[in-house]
Amino acid sequence: MREVAIMGVGMTPFDKFTERSFKSLGAEASIAALRDAGLKPQNIQVAYVGNAVAGLLFGQSMILGQVILRELGIVGVPITNVENACGSGSSALREAWIAVGSGLYDVALALGVEKLHVGDLARTTAALSGATDMETEGGLGLTFPGHWALKAKVYMAKYGITAKQLALVSVKNHSHGLLNPYVQHQKSVTVEEVLSSRMIADPLTALMCCPISDGAAAAVVCSREYLRRFPVRPGKSPVWIAASSLTTGSYDDQRDISFNDLEELAGREAFQAAGVGPNELDFAEVHDCFAIAEFLRCESLGLFEPGSYGWAVEKGEAALGGRLPINPSGGLLAKGHPVGATGLAQVAEAVWQLRGEAGKSQIEGARIGLTHCSGGGIAGDTAVCSVFILKR
Amino acid sequence: MREVAIMGVGMTPFDKFTERSFKSLGAEASIAALRDAGLKPQNIQVAYVGNAVAGLLFGQSMILGQVILRELGIVGVPITNVENACGSGSSALREAWIAVGSGLYDVALALGVEKLHVGDLARTTAALSGATDMETEGGLGLTFPGHWALKAKVYMAKYGITAKQLALVSVKNHSHGLLNPYVQHQKSVTVEEVLSSRMIADPLTALMCCPISDGAAAAVVCSREYLRRFPVRPGKSPVWIAASSLTTGSYDDQRDISFNDLEELAGREAFQAAGVGPNELDFAEVHDCFAIAEFLRCESLGLFEPGSYGWAVEKGEAALGGRLPINPSGGLLAKGHPVGATGLAQVAEAVWQLRGEAGKSQIEGARIGLTHCSGGGIAGDTAVCSVFILKR
Repeated sequence: MREVAIMGVGMTPFDKFTERSFKSLGAEASIAALRDAGLKPQNIQVAYVGNAVAGLLFGQSMILGQVILRELGIVGVPITNVENACGSGSSALREAWIAVGSGLYDVALALGVEKLHVGDLARTTAALSGATDMETEGGLGLTFPGHWALKAKVYMAKYGITAKQLALVSVKNHSHGLLNPYVQHQKSVTVEEVLSSRMIADPLTALMCCPISDGAAAAVVCSREYLRRFPVRPGKSPVWIAASSLTTGSYDDQRDISFNDLEELAGREAFQAAGVGPNELDFAEVHDCFAIAEFLRCESLGLFEPGSYGWAVEKGEAALGGRLPINPSGGLLAKGHPVGATGLAQVAEAVWQLRGEAGKSQIEGARIGLTHCSGGGIAGDTAVCSVFILKR
Repeated sequence: MREVAIMGVGMTPFDKFTERSFKSLGAEASIAALRDAGLKPQNIQVAYVGNAVAGLLFGQSMILGQVILRELGIVGVPITNVENACGSGSSALREAWIAVGSGLYDVALALGVEKLHVGDLARTTAALSGATDMETEGGLGLTFPGHWALKAKVYMAKYGITAKQLALVSVKNHSHGLLNPYVQHQKSVTVEEVLSSRMIADPLTALMCCPISDGAAAAVVCSREYLRRFPVRPGKSPVWIAASSLTTGSYDDQRDISFNDLEELAGREAFQAAGVGPNELDFAEVHDCFAIAEFLRCESLGLFEPGSYGWAVEKGEAALGGRLPINPSGGLLAKGHPVGATGLAQVAEAVWQLRGEAGKSQIEGARIGLTHCSGGGIAGDTAVCSVFILKR
């Protein structure tokens, strides 16, 4: 497969937008990514659009991407809608990567978009709960906070970590988020505030759960051949997709629920394809939908030893300035989680880091970053896990 | 891009299934395609699953493919759900083609599945009506039968064709469908019966509209390199994907509503990529969701001259045994239209023709076939148009 570079990225702020449509959010992120790449809508040869619940919340499924991109004049070219729960945006980028890597196209747009605020959080929660096997588990009533609370209980019992250590992940990510203008919860929080916030599913308090968000993020990718003919805008280095892996869930893959075998597999495949190891990473954006998720995922991906993450966070190893900053953008806990947009937002943040454009959260000399996005649940394991390794 | 062959195809009968789930239908088609290829679920390296309205009808969106394929033991590998209205199944195959063509994978599964009978046809119709821009046109109440009735009126006025000529398309496709065991409406109909069946949207009667159907279809594709190492089962020749094109809709693409510019573009791109012309086709499966659609589409694709199709059908040119058989399988009008499955069912039928396995509807010596699938509507034009050219 040919080498593929990310030429441009863009995103909307993540927030509760009470007057904006998914169409307006999707258009804003797409235009930002095109401008960042110095390209026009007419340059796009193929597009992939990721979304999770616009069908359930707005009755707009099937041709969502066509509806959004037509407003930008992106017509005639192939547009394909992809749905992989919280990995929908990642999957859009992955398909764009494959389409350009195949040699069929030179320039592709990947867009992830989600509008979750519909004036009724119960309806939103019900829609999000659909990221499971509805015919079997869907009827059991295990929501995602409940699912992750069970994992937290098992993990805490196994490794003897404390609620304070759980809370510290949220404190860290909020402290990172303070430096990022796109973040929904842009405020500093203390361990005490995290622990005393409303209990959602014991031991997870409100500040250990990512907020419900609206937003969109996009990326423009192109082939090395195209870059030779049409250099990106001066001052913007390409960021290379060194690897993309995607794994999917099953009954039989699990050792115990304090570890995610499928995420381990996705990490291993990505590191192998990129020819780098976890020690070579300068940072990682990891899917911290709940504070406990950052523990399991960092360990399953091989970034930290199983059971060690609580102490690593206590020592500041996972903070900006530490050995391996995790979620320098603020992560889902601070930034918010517009489901279908999240995977591409992680990539946008990573590209800014690798181009030295991350502003106050810039990691000096960052050369290699990992983004990890997971979604859905089947039989207690992740249904979809996507990993990208990006290099400048 | 590498050459990609279809090694196996399979489908369920298309019918009204009052006791079967989309999971059961999807599994049956996948197993049939795997058996046809002589492969096992463990051989599948990547999968794409197309569906249009399971989210709206069953609340099962986001991870539909993972849910179905897990039951077959297809786990760990990348599975991506694609949604492109009636082109969902085609788009699944297209992504499988690109993934194998890119060199990333050697064996891919594409599945299209749809369950439309939910005990309430109004709810099904409402869901299907969502294949438009819901924010603007969705509120206008123009259903698909209404949309095609308007096109029929314009076309009939422009070219002077009669209701009898419209009916003859349905008579032809039902006569083809009589030869095909997978067909939902397996009965012979006369011009009189078509014209006197219930009026749905003037001039389209019930027998000029495809039935509401449940079903699934699947294909297994592989690289030429894989075929060299692991030949397909003796007696099963590979069928090559000579071209796949996909175009998407817009306001500005239309000359008038009796012609589909985007479908013309999809046809032109496919013929160019395959290096063949319309005259070299031995047959075509064309998206005849309504009798009038077969006129517009055959003409837009360049298979017949604009305005000529009614007379071509009268002369038998588009029937089995004629100059260019259109919908030898019975088409959507006889076979039924489980939306997300249709594009892959067309491909399954085409593969059987090209392998000489089409039974009573076999076209002697068929070497090149075209399949065409279109879906959704934006501003009076098709939202998605997919064309494959297949060669033995």
